[in-house]
Amino acid sequence: MTVTLHVCITCRAGEPVEDGQPVPGARLMDALNAGDLPPGVRIKPVECLSACSNGAAIALTGPDRWTYVYGHMTSDDAPEILAGASAYAQTADGIVPWRERVMIFRKRSLARIPPIG
Amino acid sequence: MTVTLHVCITCRAGEPVEDGQPVPGARLMDALNAGDLPPGVRIKPVECLSACSNGAAIALTGPDRWTYVYGHMTSDDAPEILAGASAYAQTADGIVPWRERVMIFRKRSLARIPPIG
Repeated sequence: MTVTLHVCITCRAGEPVEDGQPVPGARLMDALNAGDLPPGVRIKPVECLSACSNGAAIALTGPDRWTYVYGHMTSDDAPEILAGASAYAQTADGIVPWRERVMIFRKRSLARIPPIG
Repeated sequence: MTVTLHVCITCRAGEPVEDGQPVPGARLMDALNAGDLPPGVRIKPVECLSACSNGAAIALTGPDRWTYVYGHMTSDDAPEILAGASAYAQTADGIVPWRERVMIFRKRSLARIPPIG
């Protein structure tokens, strides 16, 4: 089972961005790419997750499982995001038991969506 | 193509709720059930979409299409939600052109998520 970690690479996270400088979403993407990708997880950049007022945003998806959307992520969170994505990949339905969930996922949930179908 | 309108029926939307009174999410569900269900749309109650600070929340999903999550919905919005769900059902990929999108969907987006796969 491969799950997808979508990263909004256009997220400005409410920050003013200087010309030529990477936006917070792009910096987060770079930090995730520089980390150790867990087995069963692939990272996909996306242009806008429409969570602009709560960026930088990421989403975890996979077939036949719950989708999760998290906000207020920064490049400093990359290691914890990858750990959380790994735990998500290891479940059958996407639901990681609360106590095993990484702290940033407990505190910065934007939404969860039931499996499609 | 049938799409699913998920309605968080446990949403308190930040309101104090008196004992025995329906929460805002349950009132929204009732209002939607009382409306005219458009072709190609089914309504499914869900216990918690984890968007508690932005409730009442709904999500539109379907196979091979973008998922959309909206917040701050009230029972007064039921007719416009059903109209928006109908427009969503009539697309191939879930993306309703901006100008054709109902106003509450333009203004109260919590997130959109790419098709799974």
